[in-house]
Amino acid sequence: MREKIQSVDLAKCYLLLNHGPVTLVTTAFRGRRNVMAASWVMPLDFDPPKVAAVISGDSYTRELIEASGEFALNVPFRRIADKVFAAGNASGRDGDKFVPAGLTTFPAERIGAPLVYDCAAWLECKVIPEAHNQQRYDLFIAEVAAAWADPAVFSQGRWHFPDGARRTFHYQAGGVFFQTGRMLEPFHRAHMNPPEKD
Amino acid sequence: MREKIQSVDLAKCYLLLNHGPVTLVTTAFRGRRNVMAASWVMPLDFDPPKVAAVISGDSYTRELIEASGEFALNVPFRRIADKVFAAGNASGRDGDKFVPAGLTTFPAERIGAPLVYDCAAWLECKVIPEAHNQQRYDLFIAEVAAAWADPAVFSQGRWHFPDGARRTFHYQAGGVFFQTGRMLEPFHRAHMNPPEKD
Repeated sequence: MREKIQSVDLAKCYLLLNHGPVTLVTTAFRGRRNVMAASWVMPLDFDPPKVAAVISGDSYTRELIEASGEFALNVPFRRIADKVFAAGNASGRDGDKFVPAGLTTFPAERIGAPLVYDCAAWLECKVIPEAHNQQRYDLFIAEVAAAWADPAVFSQGRWHFPDGARRTFHYQAGGVFFQTGRMLEPFHRAHMNPPEKD
Repeated sequence: MREKIQSVDLAKCYLLLNHGPVTLVTTAFRGRRNVMAASWVMPLDFDPPKVAAVISGDSYTRELIEASGEFALNVPFRRIADKVFAAGNASGRDGDKFVPAGLTTFPAERIGAPLVYDCAAWLECKVIPEAHNQQRYDLFIAEVAAAWADPAVFSQGRWHFPDGARRTFHYQAGGVFFQTGRMLEPFHRAHMNPPEKD
């Protein structure tokens, strides 16, 4: 898999989350691993890049993040929306969720958490311990140690979705998502396509 | 305007931000007011509802939020993407941005910051002071005091965009946005439309 994806410049990796896609949070610690769907995730800083994510206090993912100090944010393709929904509706405490959800993985480079196939982008994150935020708000702040994207959909700092299946998507609630839709370029339109004079 | 919008149950107001749309952050303090575009915004808790937002340290918006302890998150319709871009590319210190950007406003109910017309939803927010987060990460945590939505696009806890103009949208970078696209219902599809047997 590694040879099919491209490293993303860390100073540009906020672009992978800027548009608010749903993510899969993957974790691992001493032979245990887990995956959960998360929408309450955002960039927090450019360089060094940081992210903020809400990880609920009673989740198995939370336990593995606090034990390992690491997690990955995977930005899934909409063609695996069913699997994302499945991963979001079971607990890893009841057994490994990857296989029943149909999610396969490959190794990360800088952290122990696995990365999920059929995603558009990946951010390998190391937690910056902030006990007050974690305990009071379930809020985790992390620095991005490595970032990757599928060059079919993201390259040179820009998303360029080639088809409907390989798009990111966004969570509403209750099993309903929205795919990332049509590109709007108000600035470019205004500046690059001025009204023609006759 | 007030009669055209509906109050959103506070326990459900996270749904207004769950899918990661771009927002306009509005602020006011003692006769001064400002508006900025922001994508680094997310829900933080359900009930009482909280949000997290990154407000850069040198911005006029930051100054007004720290002075007033309040801000509103406006979720704009994609038909005003040009205005959102304009608001995101000027500083309020150089003069009122609303009028040049073509943004008109109406009063909020619980806070002093104005709300922007031509939006899908609004969240009136009161800052929970967290000096460490604000100073170290430009991160503001706030409780939502009131929430509103245009019933043409959001009602009974669900988005239902009627057309292309009245959709939310998401920011990439460099003046490029993506509109909120087609609805995907993997859970509903799987359960409500099983393959027909012949």
